[in-house]
Amino acid sequence: MLFEIERKFLVAHDGWRAAAVGGRLLRDGLVGPYHTSKVRVRLDGERAWLTVKGPRKGLGRLEFEYEIPSDDADEMLRSVCQGEQVEKIRHNVFHDGLKWEVDVYQGSLSGIVLAEVELQREDQPFSKPDWVGQEVSGDPRFKKAAMLKLRRQVGRPLTISGILSASP
Amino acid sequence: MLFEIERKFLVAHDGWRAAAVGGRLLRDGLVGPYHTSKVRVRLDGERAWLTVKGPRKGLGRLEFEYEIPSDDADEMLRSVCQGEQVEKIRHNVFHDGLKWEVDVYQGSLSGIVLAEVELQREDQPFSKPDWVGQEVSGDPRFKKAAMLKLRRQVGRPLTISGILSASP
Repeated sequence: MLFEIERKFLVAHDGWRAAAVGGRLLRDGLVGPYHTSKVRVRLDGERAWLTVKGPRKGLGRLEFEYEIPSDDADEMLRSVCQGEQVEKIRHNVFHDGLKWEVDVYQGSLSGIVLAEVELQREDQPFSKPDWVGQEVSGDPRFKKAAMLKLRRQVGRPLTISGILSASP
Repeated sequence: MLFEIERKFLVAHDGWRAAAVGGRLLRDGLVGPYHTSKVRVRLDGERAWLTVKGPRKGLGRLEFEYEIPSDDADEMLRSVCQGEQVEKIRHNVFHDGLKWEVDVYQGSLSGIVLAEVELQREDQPFSKPDWVGQEVSGDPRFKKAAMLKLRRQVGRPLTISGILSASP
């Protein structure tokens, strides 16, 4: 169990690419979203995780993560997970002692790039790389389910400005 | 991953008690029920499991079960699980090469006793001990959520005949 504090940002420009390491394809599915919690299956190459995320408290939430056999994850993604699955290429960028994760969405969410940093405390100071743009932590428009819904509504690939002009 | 086939029965009389072994208190919570699947946390003494159950297919369903730290389960039961938690004392009864589980519900479901047997195949023949009563596999009235709902409606401890007279 850990208390996870993540802050999420738009990406202002491609400057992160020069410093990016460890690009890998993640395939995520939700066993299902509950009112305030969710259970996610993540397939990351040969490894896989089952994660229970509790209700949000401020910028944080309780998270319980367990590594599981990748065959199990594959089967759950095919036969248990509901709703659309999301693929993204995740790049790590290390900056000033912190690891940033830049997610380049694929498939139906292609066009979307978001950056996240994980902190120990809500008030922890940190320096933003110059390619990090506007903060969207807690902005409901940038939740995966909301982006997938908007994508179905507009019927064409999303853009960040398209998401920002959607009603929050 | 396993494909779990369970058949559920009423208990005709207390004859199972003479052969019962391994009585232990289980505390179950749902991270949440989805349309067709569910994720259950189970605390069984010092051990705990997180179980993903897929959509039903006939009498069976895909099940993915992982042992997790009991502290995690305790925290999930307190802060993530929704709805009422169920405690039951589970007794094992071995009969003709099969393990029967007799669950004596506690707390708000006290008064309810159900027996389950796990099979390898849907058409697997098995002999029923004489204390095993009417089969209720797949009967929606004997799902935990339905029993808890009925309990809230009637405002007093449930009986098996009360559940049987509820509309299915």
